[in-house]
Amino acid sequence: MARDDSEGKPMFKRLALIGVGLIGSSISHAARRAGIVGEIACSALTAAERQRAEALGLATKVYADPVDAVKGADLIILCAPVGAFKEIAEAIGPHLEKGAIVSDVGSVKAAAVRDIAPSIPDGVHFIAGHPIAGTEQSGPDAGFAELFDGRWCILTPAPDADAASLARLEEFWRKLGSNVELMTPEHHDMVLAITSHVPHLIAYNIVNTAAHLERVTDSEVIKFSAAGFRDFTRIAASDPVMWRDVFLNNKEAVLEMLGRFSEDLVALQRAIRFGDGPTLEHMFTEARAVRRGIIQAGQDTEQPDFGRNVSRVREKSR
Amino acid sequence: MARDDSEGKPMFKRLALIGVGLIGSSISHAARRAGIVGEIACSALTAAERQRAEALGLATKVYADPVDAVKGADLIILCAPVGAFKEIAEAIGPHLEKGAIVSDVGSVKAAAVRDIAPSIPDGVHFIAGHPIAGTEQSGPDAGFAELFDGRWCILTPAPDADAASLARLEEFWRKLGSNVELMTPEHHDMVLAITSHVPHLIAYNIVNTAAHLERVTDSEVIKFSAAGFRDFTRIAASDPVMWRDVFLNNKEAVLEMLGRFSEDLVALQRAIRFGDGPTLEHMFTEARAVRRGIIQAGQDTEQPDFGRNVSRVREKSR
Repeated sequence: MARDDSEGKPMFKRLALIGVGLIGSSISHAARRAGIVGEIACSALTAAERQRAEALGLATKVYADPVDAVKGADLIILCAPVGAFKEIAEAIGPHLEKGAIVSDVGSVKAAAVRDIAPSIPDGVHFIAGHPIAGTEQSGPDAGFAELFDGRWCILTPAPDADAASLARLEEFWRKLGSNVELMTPEHHDMVLAITSHVPHLIAYNIVNTAAHLERVTDSEVIKFSAAGFRDFTRIAASDPVMWRDVFLNNKEAVLEMLGRFSEDLVALQRAIRFGDGPTLEHMFTEARAVRRGIIQAGQDTEQPDFGRNVSRVREKSR
Repeated sequence: MARDDSEGKPMFKRLALIGVGLIGSSISHAARRAGIVGEIACSALTAAERQRAEALGLATKVYADPVDAVKGADLIILCAPVGAFKEIAEAIGPHLEKGAIVSDVGSVKAAAVRDIAPSIPDGVHFIAGHPIAGTEQSGPDAGFAELFDGRWCILTPAPDADAASLARLEEFWRKLGSNVELMTPEHHDMVLAITSHVPHLIAYNIVNTAAHLERVTDSEVIKFSAAGFRDFTRIAASDPVMWRDVFLNNKEAVLEMLGRFSEDLVALQRAIRFGDGPTLEHMFTEARAVRRGIIQAGQDTEQPDFGRNVSRVREKSR
């Protein structure tokens, strides 16, 4: 595989990916694009996933057992649902190589630290992480090299984390195309509760509300979904097991944000009931300003109808 | 302008568009693409909009006063916010030509019928309509000819509507690229409350909830929006005045659907609080099935990251 130009050798000699869903497979693509890993080992739970990982060339070696994947690895990234972290960490812990870096891509970080850290032996460096990128698709075939380009990866190192290892992991994510931000696991979980977890929950919720109406048929919901609803269904198409684990493991922050969401919704509901046009218009106008901020920050484009993942759209539309 | 092949003359000799925002300007583009109108007259409220309408060639004649636009028109479509319908209808009523068809594109239909029908003189045929298509952008520059391709246009004719006029209006929308469905105004308002109005309301709501947190900064919300939130901001970027009028004019159906949404959300909230994984996974899995239905019905594509407006994406991605 390609080498890192600056040193004549790759940043990591063996990258182990535990799980090759959307994120794991995208890390494989992006790491090979960057030429920063000597070899990639991966493990996947099901025979079907292993077969796809091999067919797609996601790894030099594809294993059923995470223990086999981590042997000799100097960078190990857990890319499984958060609910599986504890068991995986306990299994691989005794087989980790001294000096290796262990990270993860879980959507909640306090629970990830709680479940992984106790199994990491002395001399191995654990730094939890979360790339803020994704699509509504899942599985080994869903990954692509550009997923992280221009997005943010949040790392949540413990106060006593090894500085050199942290610097290497930051550099790794930058080479995958990401920007890197550091914060505590608890703050991460609060930020993601509002930017990701609650939005997904209400998307799932409205899709189910719509599916259980008596006076509007499923076929009508589907036919007339272009009026806004279909964008919610895209978000609600994300992996159910991954999301179950997110909500089970970020309970407090999600419940707090949900409480605020519901309070605000009741205020809007009241404005509708009493025909309070100025309040409605004011609140709708405010929301537009946030949208402008996101476009200015390069996290979406102004292009109507599509616009997520800037680089891919640009590439395909030229 | 181009002629209708079958008859050697256009379907309508003069199309009048009252308002040239996203929908009005798209009708102009699509009608010219189809070659089904002799000339297009339009009116717009502001000088800036009129200047853009002229620069974009949206109409043969651009007027400030709707009364001037409707003179001699055999098809008149109100493309203004729903709250302006009554005043417009009262103004143009006395100037409508015998045999003309009057329609609209408002997102609520019972209120549109209530506000427009009383001003329509005998011998003029009013049939309310609503094309289920759009983007998050607004204004004369936002329109494009393909907006209606493969989407649905709902018409809500009164039981005694003129059959020949209804057939002509249906044909007009088909030539713009739409499928056509007929239903009562009341049923339309119920269907759209769940597929469009409530989704927009909760998108506006979560954007505002996020903007008013103390412990998460606006800059963090924006930076990490790629995790789901940014898709809500896109929906919440739609025109505030148009949406104010929607909620003021579809109060009962919106409040009913909001009530159901909140009930269902409380059930999910409870499952999170008590750590009920099977319920969460079950509800998330159900939502996926609705998504598959939408893709099978051609109202979205499976392509990740973008996928709205099938024809444009296809064209650009080949």
